Amino acid sequence: MSVLEVIEKKKHGLTLTDREIADTIDAYVRGDVKDYQMSALLMAIYFSGMNLDEINALTKAMIDSGDTVDLSSIRGVIVDKHSTGGVGDTTTLILGPILSAYGLPFGKMSGRGLGHTGGTLDKLEAIPGFNVDLSMKEIVRSTNDIGMAVAGQTSNITPADKKLYALRDATATVDSIPLIASSIMSKKLAIHGHCLLLDVKVGDGAFMKDKKSALELAKTMVGIGESFGRKTVAMLTRMEQPLGRAVGNSLEVKEAIDTLCGNGPDDLTELCVALATKLIAMAKGDEDADIERKVRELLQNGEAFEQFKRFVKNQGGDVAAVEDPSLLPSADQSIEVYSEKEGYISAIPAHEVGILARDLGAGRVTMDDVLDMGAGVYLHKKCGDAVGRGDRLATLYGSGARDMEAARRRYLDMVAVANEPVEVKPLIIDEVDHGF
Amino acid sequence: MSVLEVIEKKKHGLTLTDREIADTIDAYVRGDVKDYQMSALLMAIYFSGMNLDEINALTKAMIDSGDTVDLSSIRGVIVDKHSTGGVGDTTTLILGPILSAYGLPFGKMSGRGLGHTGGTLDKLEAIPGFNVDLSMKEIVRSTNDIGMAVAGQTSNITPADKKLYALRDATATVDSIPLIASSIMSKKLAIHGHCLLLDVKVGDGAFMKDKKSALELAKTMVGIGESFGRKTVAMLTRMEQPLGRAVGNSLEVKEAIDTLCGNGPDDLTELCVALATKLIAMAKGDEDADIERKVRELLQNGEAFEQFKRFVKNQGGDVAAVEDPSLLPSADQSIEVYSEKEGYISAIPAHEVGILARDLGAGRVTMDDVLDMGAGVYLHKKCGDAVGRGDRLATLYGSGARDMEAARRRYLDMVAVANEPVEVKPLIIDEVDHGF
Repeated sequence: MSVLEVIEKKKHGLTLTDREIADTIDAYVRGDVKDYQMSALLMAIYFSGMNLDEINALTKAMIDSGDTVDLSSIRGVIVDKHSTGGVGDTTTLILGPILSAYGLPFGKMSGRGLGHTGGTLDKLEAIPGFNVDLSMKEIVRSTNDIGMAVAGQTSNITPADKKLYALRDATATVDSIPLIASSIMSKKLAIHGHCLLLDVKVGDGAFMKDKKSALELAKTMVGIGESFGRKTVAMLTRMEQPLGRAVGNSLEVKEAIDTLCGNGPDDLTELCVALATKLIAMAKGDEDADIERKVRELLQNGEAFEQFKRFVKNQGGDVAAVEDPSLLPSADQSIEVYSEKEGYISAIPAHEVGILARDLGAGRVTMDDVLDMGAGVYLHKKCGDAVGRGDRLATLYGSGARDMEAARRRYLDMVAVANEPVEVKPLIIDEVDHGF
Repeated sequence: MSVLEVIEKKKHGLTLTDREIADTIDAYVRGDVKDYQMSALLMAIYFSGMNLDEINALTKAMIDSGDTVDLSSIRGVIVDKHSTGGVGDTTTLILGPILSAYGLPFGKMSGRGLGHTGGTLDKLEAIPGFNVDLSMKEIVRSTNDIGMAVAGQTSNITPADKKLYALRDATATVDSIPLIASSIMSKKLAIHGHCLLLDVKVGDGAFMKDKKSALELAKTMVGIGESFGRKTVAMLTRMEQPLGRAVGNSLEVKEAIDTLCGNGPDDLTELCVALATKLIAMAKGDEDADIERKVRELLQNGEAFEQFKRFVKNQGGDVAAVEDPSLLPSADQSIEVYSEKEGYISAIPAHEVGILARDLGAGRVTMDDVLDMGAGVYLHKKCGDAVGRGDRLATLYGSGARDMEAARRRYLDMVAVANEPVEVKPLIIDEVDHGF
């Protein structure tokens, strides 16, 4: 096999064989296929696409490039959830306690993040003392003992994906569905599990801007999951305005706690209930109408919150700060944003809010940046809400010498206010399961 | 300007500005744009194409990356000819003497070659003593004194093209018309001149396999030439079987001499007459019917050959070897190929014959390979010829320990013989001038 023949085939829209894909990825990781050849192939894939067999072969080649994680000593049906990324998305911190309170083991390996806020690990580290560096044995023991663990990846999982992702990022070849799908799924499939629920975000604040491409990505990922014997379902959920009201690390932890206590924002609560209900149904193999009622009960009766506290305590976190979130890290400064118009909020562009939160210190531009756990944006009004002149729209948090007044102005400029009442579209758009 | 934005634009089929193209090429030559980014851009250009404005900007950026050659001290209308490459194409050695004998200065910078045989410089070096290393002053003086000079490029012409070409070769992005056209034209336009005739080959032995793509390439190159104020015409000529009968360096020099003496193969003679007639008409600005008659006369009355000898002598070549080509370098071994069938020759695939000649030692695989000037293939029968069993089809030449019997078998296997007479299609297919 010559990489030139492989590029040439894909350039002409032909189907690559499993062997051609495996050999190319293998040679790339070894350095025999050069970055400049791989980027030409990636661009050819962008234009010519890949069928499911090719995408499966690519996914397998990336899994085979590194270690796989065996969680089979966790007792029960192992469930996992992945979100393609949104603004203000705290669902893992809520979903985990619900699922484990319900009786499903939730032992998750998670990541840090570049972007508007930190990843799940970063958010958990807003809780003083919280330790995400667990060994594989500790993840298994914690999940068996208290039903839940969230930790960073210590193994060398999918190194081919890491190398490819860095190259895609530097060559404008990120937005290709076969490449996105195989990248996400290789990381998920390298870790042992039974059921995988994908939350594919659609809209301004998401990677997929429209339903059509989100649906294609969802179908592709579900197709890969099923090919590898993982029960996989995808839900398409709307990401136009930030999810919930909090964008920022401490702010989102507090919001997760509120939600676990039954006092969360409607949209975040509904999404978590829907995701939990679906994952439980997948694990039981049965769409029992009673599941959703029980899930809601766990949020109302305090059991989900109790489970969260057990989880925090087990990983060394300060339970007092969870019981009284005013003890979580906070920013030096805050500024209120008041409406200068009267009407109905018609748009709070999620991506722009995310960038504002990042600029306030909540997110990273490079992996060396240190997060300000207290920084971020808290939305008092969301789309569809009526506002009068002088009503409080948001509170912005930041530390040090930040120009809070400029941030206030930016927030005010990005929010759109209409004269007429605004209809807010449902959060859950569609669902893709193996029946497609 | 960020190269990611440029790649992104081209990926989405948008038009790049002159500035974006100039800055990208400049940054690439400096090393600020990396090979892996440029190869992604090249692949995006392969798929999305470029309009003439973009192609002109790319051509200009490549010219601007290096030196330009000022031949303006050559007296008269400076003409140049470029062939996109075929098998057995010796036209420069014939065209130069015809044109200069006619009174047009022919001072040409030429190249060496990778592939089936050497380039024009290599072929000239088959003449003992011939020196292609002339300074710019020597080219100008020789052209003014005796009407003709052919030399290697000593200046640093279009370094961006050299770097890009090497990358295209390693990333399967050679076959893009905007990239081919700008590469060829930048090298031509970096050298001062008035008229440029392009011989665009079409068919199995050429880069362009079909008329449609050859026509597109021709129109693109003529468009570039006219945009840069160079009078440019392209002729599309057929390249299914080798041109003439000789494929190999000494063999082609001998065939050029035969043609200059009026005894050349019909197809090679007709092509040279047509190219010379066209170039003279371009230089005179007039399609005079008398030109072709005069061109043929120069081949018949020995004036073209006299001019060739003057040219060889002026550059240190052994005129005796030109007057008696048996003194040119020859191979140690030869083998005759006899027909095992009866009928009419229907195909002698030019590309395969070229590769056979290369394998016999006439061409290079890498630039370090040393040419065997005597090696090659001589065709006794060409397409359309009737053959009987035992008729001699070709003679193969090689040196040292080559397996001549295997070469004979290969030649026999590649030639097709039909039962019915075969119609040979005309050599000249079409012409593109600025009127398109």
